[in-house]
Amino acid sequence: MTKPIKVGIIGLGTIGGGTAKVLTANASTISARSVDISLAAICDKYVDQARAKAKSIGIDPAIVTDDVNQVINNPEIDIVVELIGGINPALQFITKALSKGKSVVTANKDLVSTQGALLLNAAKEANRDFYFEAAVGGGIPIIHALKESLRANNFRRIMGIVNGTTNYILSQMTETGRGFVEMLAEAQRLGYAEADPTNDIDGHDAARKMAILASIAFNSRVTEDMVFAEGIRHIDKYDISYARQLGYVVKLLGIAAQDGEDLDVRVHPVLVPARHPLSSVNDAFNAVFVDGDALGEAMFYGRGAGELPTASAVVGDIIMAAENLVNNMAGISGCSCYKHLNVKPMRQTYNKYYFRLMVDDRSLVLAQIAQAIGENQVSIDAVVQKRVVDSGLAELVVVTHKVMEENMQNALAALQKLDSVDHVASMIRVLEE
Amino acid sequence: MTKPIKVGIIGLGTIGGGTAKVLTANASTISARSVDISLAAICDKYVDQARAKAKSIGIDPAIVTDDVNQVINNPEIDIVVELIGGINPALQFITKALSKGKSVVTANKDLVSTQGALLLNAAKEANRDFYFEAAVGGGIPIIHALKESLRANNFRRIMGIVNGTTNYILSQMTETGRGFVEMLAEAQRLGYAEADPTNDIDGHDAARKMAILASIAFNSRVTEDMVFAEGIRHIDKYDISYARQLGYVVKLLGIAAQDGEDLDVRVHPVLVPARHPLSSVNDAFNAVFVDGDALGEAMFYGRGAGELPTASAVVGDIIMAAENLVNNMAGISGCSCYKHLNVKPMRQTYNKYYFRLMVDDRSLVLAQIAQAIGENQVSIDAVVQKRVVDSGLAELVVVTHKVMEENMQNALAALQKLDSVDHVASMIRVLEE
Repeated sequence: MTKPIKVGIIGLGTIGGGTAKVLTANASTISARSVDISLAAICDKYVDQARAKAKSIGIDPAIVTDDVNQVINNPEIDIVVELIGGINPALQFITKALSKGKSVVTANKDLVSTQGALLLNAAKEANRDFYFEAAVGGGIPIIHALKESLRANNFRRIMGIVNGTTNYILSQMTETGRGFVEMLAEAQRLGYAEADPTNDIDGHDAARKMAILASIAFNSRVTEDMVFAEGIRHIDKYDISYARQLGYVVKLLGIAAQDGEDLDVRVHPVLVPARHPLSSVNDAFNAVFVDGDALGEAMFYGRGAGELPTASAVVGDIIMAAENLVNNMAGISGCSCYKHLNVKPMRQTYNKYYFRLMVDDRSLVLAQIAQAIGENQVSIDAVVQKRVVDSGLAELVVVTHKVMEENMQNALAALQKLDSVDHVASMIRVLEE
Repeated sequence: MTKPIKVGIIGLGTIGGGTAKVLTANASTISARSVDISLAAICDKYVDQARAKAKSIGIDPAIVTDDVNQVINNPEIDIVVELIGGINPALQFITKALSKGKSVVTANKDLVSTQGALLLNAAKEANRDFYFEAAVGGGIPIIHALKESLRANNFRRIMGIVNGTTNYILSQMTETGRGFVEMLAEAQRLGYAEADPTNDIDGHDAARKMAILASIAFNSRVTEDMVFAEGIRHIDKYDISYARQLGYVVKLLGIAAQDGEDLDVRVHPVLVPARHPLSSVNDAFNAVFVDGDALGEAMFYGRGAGELPTASAVVGDIIMAAENLVNNMAGISGCSCYKHLNVKPMRQTYNKYYFRLMVDDRSLVLAQIAQAIGENQVSIDAVVQKRVVDSGLAELVVVTHKVMEENMQNALAALQKLDSVDHVASMIRVLEE
């Protein structure tokens, strides 16, 4: 048909390498299904290393440069693929590429979650596409599904296991019965967790991804700073064990829901009922659970990271952008956030809670506890376990009815002050179906 | 922006009613996200009933007619939605609508699985779209995912639980321990199975859906007659119980795989390992499990039928077609089957098998059996259960290694002839991961 669409990649790291591999290995399938796409330029600051990598994939090392202008300012290039991550200089590169009339594909969740509106509008202005399927859920095509196939729905709730590192650690803690510190070390050893794991472990990565999903599903811009994030550092192996006895599995969930006129968007550990499909999403797998007013409940499951799964999403976007360029259809859709909804502060949300207390092993303790939390409008659904600990203390596990977060926090503070309570060992929210 | 896109629905049954409801209830969301869409005509042969239904949804009954030409031959109508099902007259209606310059959306799996190529080519010829997301998996957006987001992949295997009736019956048999006949009757009572359940129970419905998925995933036209189909009538509660002891769950699976230069496409009961994500897809839920060379393994899960979930997919297609008309982008893609692959006869496929025999309760029987099947190149992986039955017969459960179907069938015939074998009670294929 027409001349091939030329692609330039910035960043030949893990995802960049995967993208180059898929574009090369599957070129004939892609061409037969859609349009001819040729990888014409690669920019990487470690140019020698990148040339060796290109060669090993079967790509002419001569197309590798360390001058980013050979990609973003090159009139031959139709589509720029940004895979260096982070805000700067990725933001400058993408903005310039769009202004030069290139469509842009990225996997950059940090950038999309903070500058998504700006970049989508810049793309529309330039009559070009800005796609980022790989920014959430790796190979899982959740963003196009929410934006296109499922858009007949008013979404009620989106829930996601969108961080592979924390899901790996929690799955291994559940399977082996061992503790967080030990399992984090193993995840680091296996390459599932970074040397500085803060971003993953404390929920920031998941919060960015949920900001993106919430913005799309609810047509209202949500950025990371609006998303309450609590990580998994405090999850104790005893909590995982008690949860199992109660019929739950502990997962780090992102939740984005319509709550009256507001949105409720947060990331924190959740006790998920064992019969819920999200409970069996294990190890480095991701899943996004969608509840729409027509669709009902649906789930999208797959590998949330990794060289080739992420490249599947990146190359999917490249093909879509290429087809749009060939058919003169680029730049149809810009930012879809036409609403300006408030995100509820966490303290005003309603949840069911599990908490564990270390208490004096005396009678009457339960009555004191029930009174202390009852004074804060928190009512008990079930007291489910009691185990005498070596220290002479007893362990008490309580599940509440659905109550306001602020009341729950006040109740926990009140418990902490009771003489009979040694300390509040943990509090985990419980998924209500 | 522009004038609204006008939609005409043919058939105001369950899915037609759901489609009218979603178009009406979610009109403002759809318009804000995409383009204005107005439901301008409905045709149904039971016109009085349809007018009453329209009125109950809040639609002007005056737009309801029993003259199909008011929809397909009406210059005001931009998109025709065919929801009467079956081959004729749906085929004539769609062909005419396309020739009159209308884009067409349907949920008609019977028609798409037999006439998909013809209709996709007719749509391309007419410069219009022909969409059928709802034909497979109800609300699950699997067709657009395979055609678009995931098309960077060479697919290795697609597996689906794509028939809700059989999945409901098997799930209930598993949960309650009761038999097929009893659970079929209950499914009929609850409206999950039709009065004549043949289409579902014998795997024909699933075969049609797998023909559609295989055609899309492997870019080669597969029609129902090429798909081996075996249903669930012969599944015994004892097999479900033995399967569970062996760590499996019995599911009716559609499987479509690349096998060398050929395709392997079939529908039959399968022993699915309990840890596989497909094993926990229960009741009327559907799921499609995709294995692609870049993506790896992914699963799409949701409600496979029902008024509103199916309407979610139909209206998603309507919005896509409407947007394409507004942006002058209709008719870009036609039939995607550019290959002509052979579908392997079932007897040449390789599988692992579970089978159950009723045998004389004597020693030496096992040696005779091993010899009889060994002579047919079938080797035993495990003999796993033995239960003495009232009649004086014993029950023997055998799992084989991976062997050729033809050899397995010959082995079963040989067993049947042995004096020590009363009868072969069952044979179910086992999923290899």
